[in-house]
Amino acid sequence: MAKELDFLTKRSEDYSKWYNELVVKADLAEQADVRGCMVIKPYGYAIWEKMQRILDDKFKATGVQNAYFPLLIPKSFLSREAEHVEGFAKECAVVTHYRLKTNETGDGVVVDPSARLEEELIIRPTSETIIWNTFKNWIHSYRDLPLLVNQWCNVMRWEMRTRLFLRTSEFLWQEGHTAHASREEAEERAKLMLRVYADFAEQVMAVPVVQGVKSETERFAGALDTYTIEAMMQDGKALQSGTSHFLGQNFGKAFEVQFLNKENQPEYAWATSWGVSTRLMGALIMTHSDDNGLVLPPALAPTQVVIVPIYKNQEQLDKVDAAVAPIVERLKELGVSVKYDNADNKRPGFKFADYELKGVPVRLVLGARDLENGTVEVMRRDTLQKETLPLEGIADRAKVLLDEIQQNIFQKAKAFRDAHIYECEDYEEFKTRVKDGGFFLCHWDGTAETEARIKEETQATIRCVPFGVEQTPGTDMVSGKPAVARVLIARSY
Amino acid sequence: MAKELDFLTKRSEDYSKWYNELVVKADLAEQADVRGCMVIKPYGYAIWEKMQRILDDKFKATGVQNAYFPLLIPKSFLSREAEHVEGFAKECAVVTHYRLKTNETGDGVVVDPSARLEEELIIRPTSETIIWNTFKNWIHSYRDLPLLVNQWCNVMRWEMRTRLFLRTSEFLWQEGHTAHASREEAEERAKLMLRVYADFAEQVMAVPVVQGVKSETERFAGALDTYTIEAMMQDGKALQSGTSHFLGQNFGKAFEVQFLNKENQPEYAWATSWGVSTRLMGALIMTHSDDNGLVLPPALAPTQVVIVPIYKNQEQLDKVDAAVAPIVERLKELGVSVKYDNADNKRPGFKFADYELKGVPVRLVLGARDLENGTVEVMRRDTLQKETLPLEGIADRAKVLLDEIQQNIFQKAKAFRDAHIYECEDYEEFKTRVKDGGFFLCHWDGTAETEARIKEETQATIRCVPFGVEQTPGTDMVSGKPAVARVLIARSY
Repeated sequence: MAKELDFLTKRSEDYSKWYNELVVKADLAEQADVRGCMVIKPYGYAIWEKMQRILDDKFKATGVQNAYFPLLIPKSFLSREAEHVEGFAKECAVVTHYRLKTNETGDGVVVDPSARLEEELIIRPTSETIIWNTFKNWIHSYRDLPLLVNQWCNVMRWEMRTRLFLRTSEFLWQEGHTAHASREEAEERAKLMLRVYADFAEQVMAVPVVQGVKSETERFAGALDTYTIEAMMQDGKALQSGTSHFLGQNFGKAFEVQFLNKENQPEYAWATSWGVSTRLMGALIMTHSDDNGLVLPPALAPTQVVIVPIYKNQEQLDKVDAAVAPIVERLKELGVSVKYDNADNKRPGFKFADYELKGVPVRLVLGARDLENGTVEVMRRDTLQKETLPLEGIADRAKVLLDEIQQNIFQKAKAFRDAHIYECEDYEEFKTRVKDGGFFLCHWDGTAETEARIKEETQATIRCVPFGVEQTPGTDMVSGKPAVARVLIARSY
Repeated sequence: MAKELDFLTKRSEDYSKWYNELVVKADLAEQADVRGCMVIKPYGYAIWEKMQRILDDKFKATGVQNAYFPLLIPKSFLSREAEHVEGFAKECAVVTHYRLKTNETGDGVVVDPSARLEEELIIRPTSETIIWNTFKNWIHSYRDLPLLVNQWCNVMRWEMRTRLFLRTSEFLWQEGHTAHASREEAEERAKLMLRVYADFAEQVMAVPVVQGVKSETERFAGALDTYTIEAMMQDGKALQSGTSHFLGQNFGKAFEVQFLNKENQPEYAWATSWGVSTRLMGALIMTHSDDNGLVLPPALAPTQVVIVPIYKNQEQLDKVDAAVAPIVERLKELGVSVKYDNADNKRPGFKFADYELKGVPVRLVLGARDLENGTVEVMRRDTLQKETLPLEGIADRAKVLLDEIQQNIFQKAKAFRDAHIYECEDYEEFKTRVKDGGFFLCHWDGTAETEARIKEETQATIRCVPFGVEQTPGTDMVSGKPAVARVLIARSY
């Protein structure tokens, strides 16, 4: 059945509704019939797979190896690290039984009360506890360190309000867990992985990010420091896109992971953990897309170039087919993923709208008149500009255009982001302006009290103390107390 | 800490113990502190990743796309397909609550009784129900078909007796689910995926398999036909290594998945599902490995060639380093994964034994005398044969040797398997001989009664009605009744 092309709600009308509609209409994901969970559809998953592959290569280039740890965590593990349990243990899926049985009427199943677990198991919300419980057996000497492990898996947090990709009860992610012989090495690893995330976001996703360190309040439960990359969406809100944690010796101590150092003295191992998730899909969609649909960076587009023929009869189509064949071949040689859509059951106008909705970066249209003139119509998705170009050499030109688009959407997003970063010294002004979105660089006195007041009064939070910003002391805009540095404050997803 | 190299139990002494020890000592996997679950260690996971990548490419070459469906399945979904619930619903992990809270003494967490789910959720043992519940929304017309979807994920079945890779409560797998407009097309797809599995097993894993169809008793719960690949382990037992199911319209009807055919008439969609799991790791290990450790097919070995230097002083090591550099470079050019292990903290003898244990297919040893003579010692893991060869052109020779090893271990496994397939006409003889392992081709009268009696009296089961075997009618060896064909009977994992 030819799918009806519905119009999207415009971003300017209702940004949130635009996002929700786009995710579904572009066939990325949909709500599952399981509370708070999503189905990632083939088109959405193809983008996620590209992200995975590229990130995985980057991790491995730093010496990380993949492994797999159990989905279920004994309840008692959670209580081992005191801060961790406060932050994570509460809202999670709890397995209490291991068997169902046929009900009395014989037409359904019920939980078998005799199959109750002695100790309940929870579905991992994150795996520090089970992994450090395992590391205990793997780490004995400084020679076993560093231990650099990552897993790609599903995790579950019982979220009350969910949105596709941005916040779902179950989501897919990678979680890296490393153990080190020294504090310095662990801190350096946590920062290194943040840079890997930032490079990936900017170079592959074309999403500019602010790197920084979280305030104590916003830290991961159990971390000494949480590093973050924060991206700005088109509504000016911040989206935390990846975090890397320096965990100190907290988990080493909680799970008794000791090693003999070079002096043969026992020491607790130092830890990091770091993760990005399917939430990146949300960042990708919301940074670039427009009222016509997705705009995908060529580096992540499942189809980078689509070719659509225009024809009135089979004879014309045959000619176009013949002209397109070498273009497709050349594009494949160049490593470009290309689709030639000569399906007969959809009109060209439908195809155009559908590929725009799906965010295919480059569209080539070839008709009988083009063949006569030796030309082809080229449309680039990022600007929607059309251009008529010589057919000769069009594959190589398309390849160059893909690189241009990759650069352009990054520059566009960066220009937008930079135009919406403000220094602000006055709390009243801040309260008014923050409603319209944007990142605010404000002096902060470093107290949790001020932080809580800002959050309560404006729903904005301290996203991070940004790196790479020239810092001068000043006065906290809320408390009027001295402040050593500016922090980045914004409303967020 | 330099790990002590323990000796393995010999296969001839205790095959089962040999396997259990090998999995742990070769750093493939270990028992987790969660009942029945395993930790897949980096070395084991690297092999699994190679399997995944190659299988995934093969699936995609047949038009399959990846997607992701929820981990949790509402209990009521299971009762929708009557046979399916009988086969699967019983032994599974049941989520009943979604919150923990701090206990009264404040030093632990307990299940919050107020956070009980209205309907319990089970952790997927397989995903037919949740996927067909989703397909309902994706399939409306014959134009939406075929729908060819696969997911790589974790599943959970509450097994009572577990063994690493072979049978664990949680395991990793892929499950393909397809929907079709006709019975013929669905049956062809189920058979096609069996061939994909068989080709993968034989060409990549170097594991010869018997393809066939299961008896009704051994079918997947809810299938009309289950196709299987059966491999023979070195103890003569069968290991079911992959299955592909023709599900008829059972799930289409259970989840009301109807499409309008070309005549605009509603029809129920036809289904297949097919999967292989981390169980393949067990098949891989048990088919090829020996008393010295793993034997890996080059196509799946994380390290294909290891180079170990022999030296007495830094000067000699410098010379070996210089000679090895171009060999490493050339091997990488040839697409061979190579490791040069010039670590100073382990003796060569330790390295040799460790790489044998890990199954690295080719080992090159280079010492001062070799450099003088322009030679290198080459050891192939499959035969443990050593040979001294010219240093000149050794990289290219090693590449050829990898291909030879890949072929050789397949031929060796096939010769072993073929030598242990017996035709048998006499049940008393069968009862005696089956204890020593092997595949028995026996006439079967087709009744579940005979099948049950064989299983009860010999612990052997009908593995399949094999394809590609010339069949002649005969007499059932148990019942004496007429039988149209021979079936493959064996004890199994």
